[in-house]
Amino acid sequence: MPQPAMIQLASIQSFHVGGRRQALSGRAVEQRVLAQGGQPRALDMNGDHMVGQLYAQFYTQASPTRALPVVLWHGGGMTGANWEATPDGRPGWLQHFLEAGLHVCVSDAMERGRASWALWPELYEQAPVMRSMQEGWDMFRVGPLAGYSSDASQRRAHAGQRFPVECFDQFACQWVPRWTGHENRIMQAYEALLARIGPCVLIGHSQGGGFALRAAALWPQWVKAVVALEPSGAPVDVPLSGPLPPHLVLWGDHIEQHPAWVAYRRTVEGHATRLRAAGAAVEVVDLAARGLPGHSHFPMLDHGSDAVCALVIDWITRQAAA
Amino acid sequence: MPQPAMIQLASIQSFHVGGRRQALSGRAVEQRVLAQGGQPRALDMNGDHMVGQLYAQFYTQASPTRALPVVLWHGGGMTGANWEATPDGRPGWLQHFLEAGLHVCVSDAMERGRASWALWPELYEQAPVMRSMQEGWDMFRVGPLAGYSSDASQRRAHAGQRFPVECFDQFACQWVPRWTGHENRIMQAYEALLARIGPCVLIGHSQGGGFALRAAALWPQWVKAVVALEPSGAPVDVPLSGPLPPHLVLWGDHIEQHPAWVAYRRTVEGHATRLRAAGAAVEVVDLAARGLPGHSHFPMLDHGSDAVCALVIDWITRQAAA
Repeated sequence: MPQPAMIQLASIQSFHVGGRRQALSGRAVEQRVLAQGGQPRALDMNGDHMVGQLYAQFYTQASPTRALPVVLWHGGGMTGANWEATPDGRPGWLQHFLEAGLHVCVSDAMERGRASWALWPELYEQAPVMRSMQEGWDMFRVGPLAGYSSDASQRRAHAGQRFPVECFDQFACQWVPRWTGHENRIMQAYEALLARIGPCVLIGHSQGGGFALRAAALWPQWVKAVVALEPSGAPVDVPLSGPLPPHLVLWGDHIEQHPAWVAYRRTVEGHATRLRAAGAAVEVVDLAARGLPGHSHFPMLDHGSDAVCALVIDWITRQAAA
Repeated sequence: MPQPAMIQLASIQSFHVGGRRQALSGRAVEQRVLAQGGQPRALDMNGDHMVGQLYAQFYTQASPTRALPVVLWHGGGMTGANWEATPDGRPGWLQHFLEAGLHVCVSDAMERGRASWALWPELYEQAPVMRSMQEGWDMFRVGPLAGYSSDASQRRAHAGQRFPVECFDQFACQWVPRWTGHENRIMQAYEALLARIGPCVLIGHSQGGGFALRAAALWPQWVKAVVALEPSGAPVDVPLSGPLPPHLVLWGDHIEQHPAWVAYRRTVEGHATRLRAAGAAVEVVDLAARGLPGHSHFPMLDHGSDAVCALVIDWITRQAAA
């Protein structure tokens, strides 16, 4: 049965940028069965490998409503899947941006998702880290750490919580391992991405929100407007001068109950003060103060995600340079 | 500037299926800096983790030309990115299937890409394996092993090679680590995917081609037609009986110069013989014999990928049940 064509695209493509060839050596040759029903064969991992690339999907509108694409950067331990649907199966922000006629680029940061990752200790120095569901429940401000239970029916969320709590396990399927200390490499790949895309509206969440604030400070020739959704950091080490793009910073609820978030937000507020002193237009929005209370660290996945997305699209539409 | 709307979709969404919660214990708590500009904090990876899920993107047509979706399974050490574009930036089969009005599902197999992967030795038993570019050059039949060089200008491909050889490094950016011995878990996740999607046309490449042949033998209620593109294995252990879907098996060139591929193909030919004996319609196509010579192990990425895709779409269109 035909459904309304909500999305009319000229093309859907993907690419990798920022990779470079590196040699791996010193690994013993192993004997492994690699194909179903096959025989063991020598597996020699020594040789050349691509390292440092990120992955990007680009959705090109047939009849764009705006010239600049929206570029979406996910947070730590996540992938671009964050933008594609909510854990309870509602449309993600990708769908909304495409329905609004915007070109969209969804990326997987270096080392995550389809960007791939490299072997250690040869190509990466350290072992990865992986967030437990207990930690996610706490750090994503779904509920207090003590409110997590392996028995989903026994979990206790914050009062008024708008995250789809009953689908927390489904959400945890999206989480991927990450590395610490890779910030500079990640930004190198993002720089290559922006150099390829050119002027854009940049939207980053959590760790990606901090990276987006950094990109806006470093590369205003590409970042014409920036939205930092619950940023977990800010470029306190970057001098702010010259033309700076307009900034929108969005926050959910329950920050004061999570000391790590009190500290992260303090860092971001300091950056906002510096931005304003440097002449940038900075709008900091507590979603609750706009009549959208109860949001977790993931407003794009919460009940009410459509309203937050509409707020973002409205802000983008009001930015002359974007 | 408006471009022709080649793709008209009702929705683009993604989801994970097949994951289950598992507890990890016994890891020491580490102190790590997790946010740009933040302070070290305790990182305790012990706790619950989701394990075993795969990732799927579903593109729903506004006005589908056929009822059944096309489901795309990539090969070993790859992700769904295989289907999205060629290494030299031409449209991938995803674009062609969508332009043909087909619903499409692109998946990342368990442990790869956006499906995520789990820590070892606690949740996976073994360390991952990763293909070197040397091995890929050989195993993907781009050229002889001795023809690979770290200096791209010095590489020697097979005569008449249609893989975009000058973009081999770009292609290697797509490769991801994998695990050996996970075949049953991967198939469990694929079973959950097919149970969710229902009747479909299944297209698998390489390791995914072997999995697709297995799925067709095990679950004919869901697999109404199957295309195995350069399958690296076959379900020699599965009894064949009852209704079996029509099969199309496609092969590129230069198999005889790569002993591993001679063996893989022999296994698949044996399966085709068993399928025919069980009453299934099986078409085995050497692309060269159809006037499409020079293909590598990745006909969907080679120059001429459009013609191979057209051949596949034509075959699908002729299958009554699909």
